Amino acid sequence: MRQSDTLSARTADLLDEVRRSAPLVQCLTNSVVHGFSANALLAIGASPVMADVPGEAGPFAEIASGMLINLGTPHSEQRTAMDEAATAAHRSGTPWVLDPVAVGTLEIRTTLARDLLAYSPTAVRGNPSEIIGLAGLGGGGRGTDAVDEPETALDAAAELMRTCGAVTAISGPTDLISGIGGVIRSTTGDPLLTSVTGGGCALGAITAAFLAVSAGGTGAATYTETDDAAVATAAATSVYTIASELAAAKADGPGSFVPALLDALAEVDAETVRERAGLS
Amino acid sequence: MRQSDTLSARTADLLDEVRRSAPLVQCLTNSVVHGFSANALLAIGASPVMADVPGEAGPFAEIASGMLINLGTPHSEQRTAMDEAATAAHRSGTPWVLDPVAVGTLEIRTTLARDLLAYSPTAVRGNPSEIIGLAGLGGGGRGTDAVDEPETALDAAAELMRTCGAVTAISGPTDLISGIGGVIRSTTGDPLLTSVTGGGCALGAITAAFLAVSAGGTGAATYTETDDAAVATAAATSVYTIASELAAAKADGPGSFVPALLDALAEVDAETVRERAGLS
Amino acid sequence: MRQSDTLSARTADLLDEVRRSAPLVQCLTNSVVHGFSANALLAIGASPVMADVPGEAGPFAEIASGMLINLGTPHSEQRTAMDEAATAAHRSGTPWVLDPVAVGTLEIRTTLARDLLAYSPTAVRGNPSEIIGLAGLGGGGRGTDAVDEPETALDAAAELMRTCGAVTAISGPTDLISGIGGVIRSTTGDPLLTSVTGGGCALGAITAAFLAVSAGGTGAATYTETDDAAVATAAATSVYTIASELAAAKADGPGSFVPALLDALAEVDAETVRERAGLS
Repeated sequence: MRQSDTLSARTADLLDEVRRSAPLVQCLTNSVVHGFSANALLAIGASPVMADVPGEAGPFAEIASGMLINLGTPHSEQRTAMDEAATAAHRSGTPWVLDPVAVGTLEIRTTLARDLLAYSPTAVRGNPSEIIGLAGLGGGGRGTDAVDEPETALDAAAELMRTCGAVTAISGPTDLISGIGGVIRSTTGDPLLTSVTGGGCALGAITAAFLAVSAGGTGAATYTETDDAAVATAAATSVYTIASELAAAKADGPGSFVPALLDALAEVDAETVRERAGLS
Repeated sequence: MRQSDTLSARTADLLDEVRRSAPLVQCLTNSVVHGFSANALLAIGASPVMADVPGEAGPFAEIASGMLINLGTPHSEQRTAMDEAATAAHRSGTPWVLDPVAVGTLEIRTTLARDLLAYSPTAVRGNPSEIIGLAGLGGGGRGTDAVDEPETALDAAAELMRTCGAVTAISGPTDLISGIGGVIRSTTGDPLLTSVTGGGCALGAITAAFLAVSAGGTGAATYTETDDAAVATAAATSVYTIASELAAAKADGPGSFVPALLDALAEVDAETVRERAGLS
Repeated sequence: MRQSDTLSARTADLLDEVRRSAPLVQCLTNSVVHGFSANALLAIGASPVMADVPGEAGPFAEIASGMLINLGTPHSEQRTAMDEAATAAHRSGTPWVLDPVAVGTLEIRTTLARDLLAYSPTAVRGNPSEIIGLAGLGGGGRGTDAVDEPETALDAAAELMRTCGAVTAISGPTDLISGIGGVIRSTTGDPLLTSVTGGGCALGAITAAFLAVSAGGTGAATYTETDDAAVATAAATSVYTIASELAAAKADGPGSFVPALLDALAEVDAETVRERAGLS
């Protein structure tokens, strides 16, 4: 079996597992995409909890099956909660995703993101400029817009793996998922994903759901196999971007694309994934 | 006239009254469902105001016709505003709804919710686990998921009536509305309501609108007849869940269900309510 | 060429310029409409950044091409960020829009809004009651509902021009844009805009995008010609309300109107604007 077939089959299996076990995914995310992210998790079959208050964020990160920290609108109280949740996730082995929105451009979140790396995120997801900015290799984007090509961020991804053991997903026309065993490429996706706010943020949440079931689906999960994390991250990317293609076929523009994407996330099944996945 | 016909007729009348008087409904609610809740209020014919800043929340609760406190993402400043708004609503007789999201599971909101009971919410709305958690009868859900059957929360509802005079709406395949005169059952609704975030939260806001007009539609309303509150709460539940059935018939999944639900809330009329209501 | 033709032609040109240069528009706005406003900016061709944290809001306002401050849910930390951003925009010449949501009704935001006038907003956008409340000429709305006719707010608009040099856009069935050279009227628009939350808020964001390109599209823009600001504000109003008409033709109610409006904002082109604009 070729590697691409193996990856497609594993992606389909992980999707079925998300649907079967409905992992609890805690999101500490930005206020712009709160609702869309929660709905994306529900549509894929996971169970979202948006607990981001200090005093609740940490205890919940211990019982959650997966966790997301997205730095889009990091108010001071949420920053405290993020530190608390990352600490708890790290201690208890809850797999978690860091989405460094606009890191490298804006100062407070750049400092925060680098501090959070100490808690070993399982995966980091961002555009090339954000990944380069997070790794401290210069660059910096234009707000949330990427100004670098995905390939240029691979050195930064390798640095994140070396320093904190994180898999890195770099968004682009071809998404790159850089793990310990090399780079997985995912070619599916529709440009409309970049025409709506939160197109990437929701993928961060769904990545946490896939990591949760890859790790066994309980809060006590631990990652010893980084390649498992890379495959789960690639699987989330693949399912999400396949859904974006199904949605784009029905949409009349960026407005109707959003509900169509949620419909597609609820509808996409293992067979469609095996047929359409562009992983290698 | 049978009780079910009386309830249907009263529900239709209350819907017409919401449309006629456009009650001002203040919402202190979670950031995940802010937009959806405001749009649901507008669609049903009410006028939403999302004033949840300390210093504004209290004064506005005195002039609002109805008020909602939803504990989904209770940041510290919002908690202060909630205390202020509940105090003002209680003092001035503004009917108000408490939605104890994830109470029983997460600690800060559980303490807050129990403190707020001192200000006599007119109605409490939640899933069985949240109602049991609020009443302090043990249990506790799985984030926002209910793990108990509606009937098991009736003792907790009776406890809430006894200690603070609140009507309790318990969500489930059959919704139970427990008032001083007994339990009203509402059988309408579509499972898609549980596939989108805020499906219950928006009903809390709409319940506040129905309580507002049932109480006379002004900020000076006072509830002496708890059964009126139970009927208004049941009416809101009935109209909202009937709209969910109309929406589900047009939706292709959870994504398209959300705009369809708002369309249906704007479209549903007294005649449809009289025909479809499943109240008894 | 009649003035109405000149205005239509200029509106079409500005739309093309927004699409061509994709101005960075920073939004400090309310949590109810965060997602919708960002999506409206993306749909029209601008690039939204929702940086509203103290320490980030100021530095970003210096590099942004346009900026919006919307007072819908002004929590204390956001108020600090608003002061910081307005200061920075004023100092660096970034054109910015003030949307005084519910000013005149609620106290904290009324004080804040009047303080922000010291930083010379390029444009103010609101309903008649809000404009009158902002100028301190009495009045006050009913939450976010206007209780005054647009024409009654023209004195308040003149006062805002006199004291801080701001163009004022007054919403209504006919929108009035009051600049130094007189009043521009815009007659397009659909009532469904008032049936959804954020219908006005998103226009504030889009107005910032049009001001950005009218001013040359860079952060170093300065307004010496107030009439340019009035024309850009009228152009934003015109394009947005034309899109609302296109959307209403496809919508089944307020729910389906929102995605249809975003689709229409992405689709509306210079030719449609020249044909349909109702500016004079």
